[in-house]
Amino acid sequence: MKIELAESYGFCFGVKRAIKIAEDNKNSSTYGPLIHNSKEIERLEKDFKVGLTDDHRSFSSGDKAVIRTHGIPKNELSELKANNVNVVDATCPYVTKPQQICQEMSEQGYDIIIFGDEAHPEIKGVKSYATYGATVVTSPKELEDLKLKDKIALVAQTTRKVEDYLEVANYLIPRHKEVRVFNTICNATFENQEAVRKISKKADVMIIIGGKNSSNTKQLFSISHDNCKDSYHIEDENDLDFSWFDGKEFCGISAGASTPDWIIQNVVNAIEKNQQTKNS
Amino acid sequence: MKIELAESYGFCFGVKRAIKIAEDNKNSSTYGPLIHNSKEIERLEKDFKVGLTDDHRSFSSGDKAVIRTHGIPKNELSELKANNVNVVDATCPYVTKPQQICQEMSEQGYDIIIFGDEAHPEIKGVKSYATYGATVVTSPKELEDLKLKDKIALVAQTTRKVEDYLEVANYLIPRHKEVRVFNTICNATFENQEAVRKISKKADVMIIIGGKNSSNTKQLFSISHDNCKDSYHIEDENDLDFSWFDGKEFCGISAGASTPDWIIQNVVNAIEKNQQTKNS
Repeated sequence: MKIELAESYGFCFGVKRAIKIAEDNKNSSTYGPLIHNSKEIERLEKDFKVGLTDDHRSFSSGDKAVIRTHGIPKNELSELKANNVNVVDATCPYVTKPQQICQEMSEQGYDIIIFGDEAHPEIKGVKSYATYGATVVTSPKELEDLKLKDKIALVAQTTRKVEDYLEVANYLIPRHKEVRVFNTICNATFENQEAVRKISKKADVMIIIGGKNSSNTKQLFSISHDNCKDSYHIEDENDLDFSWFDGKEFCGISAGASTPDWIIQNVVNAIEKNQQTKNS
Repeated sequence: MKIELAESYGFCFGVKRAIKIAEDNKNSSTYGPLIHNSKEIERLEKDFKVGLTDDHRSFSSGDKAVIRTHGIPKNELSELKANNVNVVDATCPYVTKPQQICQEMSEQGYDIIIFGDEAHPEIKGVKSYATYGATVVTSPKELEDLKLKDKIALVAQTTRKVEDYLEVANYLIPRHKEVRVFNTICNATFENQEAVRKISKKADVMIIIGGKNSSNTKQLFSISHDNCKDSYHIEDENDLDFSWFDGKEFCGISAGASTPDWIIQNVVNAIEKNQQTKNS
């Protein structure tokens, strides 16, 4: 069986940057998981003594708090700063952008629509910047009963599929005088998505590696599954079931933006080893 | 055969307004046809002595120039005013709007894309307001080789189909940081289009009445033809071919925004009379 990695996969600019920041700040703590990959977080804790807390109030004056790639709500950031916590901001710059857009557009009188998952930390953060509030939706259906202004500003979670984003835009455009569509889906997401789309069309089995709570990995899986029914979302090599590869000829591999190369390599090695055993 | 008018058809607010302005300004001249309906223009000339000229330089100081519903290029309007021509502006307010948007967005540093027909007087006028120029397209294909800025402002000819407009928006959104989509398609256009869509799905023959050079009538015909192959675009009752109605059970009728009621009535009367003759 041929094993091939997608042309673009894995770590994006924001994740690489955040890990570098964490590694440079030994003995600090992140507020919430730095990235959506528990194995990499274990590595940072083990090798760099970077801890993790789920409550921003647990930081005291002088403590070092690393802000996760997904960002945090505006009021929590203000509280940390007011309490003289030493804030080290690892928010991805592609997430800071929609935060700024929400604030500016809200203050200019636009109704803000955010396309994304209300429960996702990135979106909790982004929404908190809309001075006069924002509506979060995952589909046009959720817009049907809303009374909105004539002027709409639309932003997307950085990791969403562009086709789904366009559906929301297409619902809004005919119904409002002006829709300002900000393309806040990040390039790495685009590239990984394009690459998984391409490879999943040729593969007869697809392995998508990434945290189970990673939004962008779920999107990669969804695109892959559209083209290749035998697609599997795993966190690491321990999740593999080698019967998936029985009778298959082409195994495509992709990984989410928070999946480190060492995990990807472990998965490839495990599949290759199994194939060799089978053939010997 | 049943004959039914679409729920919404014919004269829009801007056309009604322009005709009232022309009727109130006897012995004036319009620069270019006031509306795209030659029969109505003949009526204005005959009953109200409203003339027509195709050259704005033919107006002299003190002459009264009525500006057509579609508007005129900015520099020509300035020339008329500079030459002390008495300008009576019958530009449809829904056309003034995209003119203003072009000017403002161009001066704010946006690249302007106009979805419409470059040769249509409305678009010649709208484009002239983009201080730093604008690109006019009728499909996403025409955007493919252009180098555009990250920030785009998109406006549409008032009489275009919204589905086609969305295609252009959908091409631009994933490729640019911000696309400001202004919904400049006018409500009357929407309503007439919705109504023709509805009736053409039940009719087995459709008659669309309007000037051959009327953009909005052509759009109505296109929607009608999508749903009912036996659709015909006529200017008045003289264009009817009664064989179109042989064996038909339901004739739907619609008319463009510049088609006066008296022409629509003449068409209905002619079809009804023919049916009576056939049945007697």
